[in-house]
Amino acid sequence: MSLPDAPLLRAARRQPTSFTPVWLMRQAGRYLPEYRAMRERYGFLELARNPEAAAEVTVQPVARLGVDAAILFADILLIVEPLGVGLEFAAGEGPVIHRPVRSEAAIARLPRVDVESSVPFVFDAVRRVKRGLAGKVPLIGFAGAPFTVASYLVEGGPSRDYLHTKRLMYEEPEGWGRLMGILVDATARYLNGQIAAGAEAVQIFDSWVGVLAPEDYRTFVMPHTRALVRALTPGVPVIHFGTGTASLLPAMRAAGGDVIGLDWRVDLDVGWAAVGHDVGVQGNLDPVVLLSKPAYIRQRVKDILERAGGRPGHIFNLGHGILPQTPVEHARALVEMVHELSDRR
Amino acid sequence: MSLPDAPLLRAARRQPTSFTPVWLMRQAGRYLPEYRAMRERYGFLELARNPEAAAEVTVQPVARLGVDAAILFADILLIVEPLGVGLEFAAGEGPVIHRPVRSEAAIARLPRVDVESSVPFVFDAVRRVKRGLAGKVPLIGFAGAPFTVASYLVEGGPSRDYLHTKRLMYEEPEGWGRLMGILVDATARYLNGQIAAGAEAVQIFDSWVGVLAPEDYRTFVMPHTRALVRALTPGVPVIHFGTGTASLLPAMRAAGGDVIGLDWRVDLDVGWAAVGHDVGVQGNLDPVVLLSKPAYIRQRVKDILERAGGRPGHIFNLGHGILPQTPVEHARALVEMVHELSDRR
Repeated sequence: MSLPDAPLLRAARRQPTSFTPVWLMRQAGRYLPEYRAMRERYGFLELARNPEAAAEVTVQPVARLGVDAAILFADILLIVEPLGVGLEFAAGEGPVIHRPVRSEAAIARLPRVDVESSVPFVFDAVRRVKRGLAGKVPLIGFAGAPFTVASYLVEGGPSRDYLHTKRLMYEEPEGWGRLMGILVDATARYLNGQIAAGAEAVQIFDSWVGVLAPEDYRTFVMPHTRALVRALTPGVPVIHFGTGTASLLPAMRAAGGDVIGLDWRVDLDVGWAAVGHDVGVQGNLDPVVLLSKPAYIRQRVKDILERAGGRPGHIFNLGHGILPQTPVEHARALVEMVHELSDRR
Repeated sequence: MSLPDAPLLRAARRQPTSFTPVWLMRQAGRYLPEYRAMRERYGFLELARNPEAAAEVTVQPVARLGVDAAILFADILLIVEPLGVGLEFAAGEGPVIHRPVRSEAAIARLPRVDVESSVPFVFDAVRRVKRGLAGKVPLIGFAGAPFTVASYLVEGGPSRDYLHTKRLMYEEPEGWGRLMGILVDATARYLNGQIAAGAEAVQIFDSWVGVLAPEDYRTFVMPHTRALVRALTPGVPVIHFGTGTASLLPAMRAAGGDVIGLDWRVDLDVGWAAVGHDVGVQGNLDPVVLLSKPAYIRQRVKDILERAGGRPGHIFNLGHGILPQTPVEHARALVEMVHELSDRR
């Protein structure tokens, strides 16, 4: 089988496959002992910046789980480091941005980012992953969507209410537009660089977009995400993912992507109907289900596959990243179940 | 005007009103200086347990904002105190339950709660509020929905992933059902007690139900919420509210309620169509909008009223509680805008 015929890439183009391809968000993550061993040697950013180590943790879960794609190990905030905002990953607390950007004036002072020269280690990691995978499965490159990255830049870290982000949108819409423009430009270069280095597909993570009213999404986000998707190398499948997006799905689809990622909060058939059957969907098992017994996991996998109805264009995944508490054998069993229960040969 | 003809009660019955009634979730809350003054004298639970003080903070915002209803000041967890789980409100951290209930065995050990004798101060507060309101506007009583209260009991506090709650559902469904049964019974008595003491309507807060897959809601929540709604005193309007519920709306409506509360993450017209026009809707301005300029607030209020289309059965509210950072004059302006922009006389 040549890589363009890999089930994941065929499904992303809505071509028939003999089984439903599956991968897991954060499959290179803390539930995996070999990943934890690497994290004992490297800090989070240190690991992401070391091409050899990043490539190793990217490739590890492919053999371990039998998934149909690798996803590059990186962080959606690597791209904001060159903006000089003081990015740090505090242990157990997630990312902190020490100098958040909350006004049009602060946005005007941001330096121009030369993506190609500022994150060369990412592109190097992609090339190493490609050698490590040896054509067995495709590699998915990824980046944060402009809204989600902007929300970190403005809030300074994770947020509950996204007060500062929404205030900037409402009160200084021109400054907001300028910030989104900077991120669209940098993210397009970042993803196209990953594609040039060998990524066969890309996923755009708009993880926190579900905090917005649909009206806010349409006004302040959709045009920018659309500009990003349009700036990407043609012919490479784009997966567009967010959480809490049940009411945003038609607008996310309008923004772009060959495949729309669904979280578990929507029935897969309802979500697919909302985005339209002329795009694919990815999802959407609640990650918490993987902590229950295999017989129960199987029941929920079956329900999702039945909702997909064997229609070409479904990529199985969790509805968000795999949880650190997940038993590795359950993750492995999930992949086997998806392959077995979707077997159409 | 007699109280049964109050715009809020008419709207809850989908009868025409000469303007759209409005109240704000957490209108007795930290954005209000007179509330903060009371909180300097009383701890949170202390305030909730003191009928005179609770009645005072309930009545305060009615005159201050000109809203069309009072909502009882209380907390959704007051009802779990008699279960002996060690409820505490830690300053700035929200509720903590020191002895969370995470197994069928722990659930079997829960004592029987005699609601009438364990929270008499709530019913006393209702009677005092009624005297304080002197028939000017109706009083909305409230309680947490069984799922949201159970999630606190199981997690021990607010949660990100609701791991323990979902595990209990998936792994010990009988224990889960038993816990929900206990809460349905206690909550029905609690709400009927508020109604007997004078509340003219009640709101059920299923604030965190949006973390569930629709399948989980239908299996593990809907039957219990339905049992609660059916056990309530007939003829008293029930408002059924949750956040992040875009894909749960048809099932929430099936569970019950005369009015379904919408958060801001769904367009009001789309949400109303999803629950059906034979029930009312309440909502749904993003609370963050109140932090922006009045001209912008007005634009967003107008959009919501246009989506409601003057159809009887719309109660204006925020999509969740008012934020502590909200300027009081903006809250007051919001109420005026709703009344003015919806004037149908």
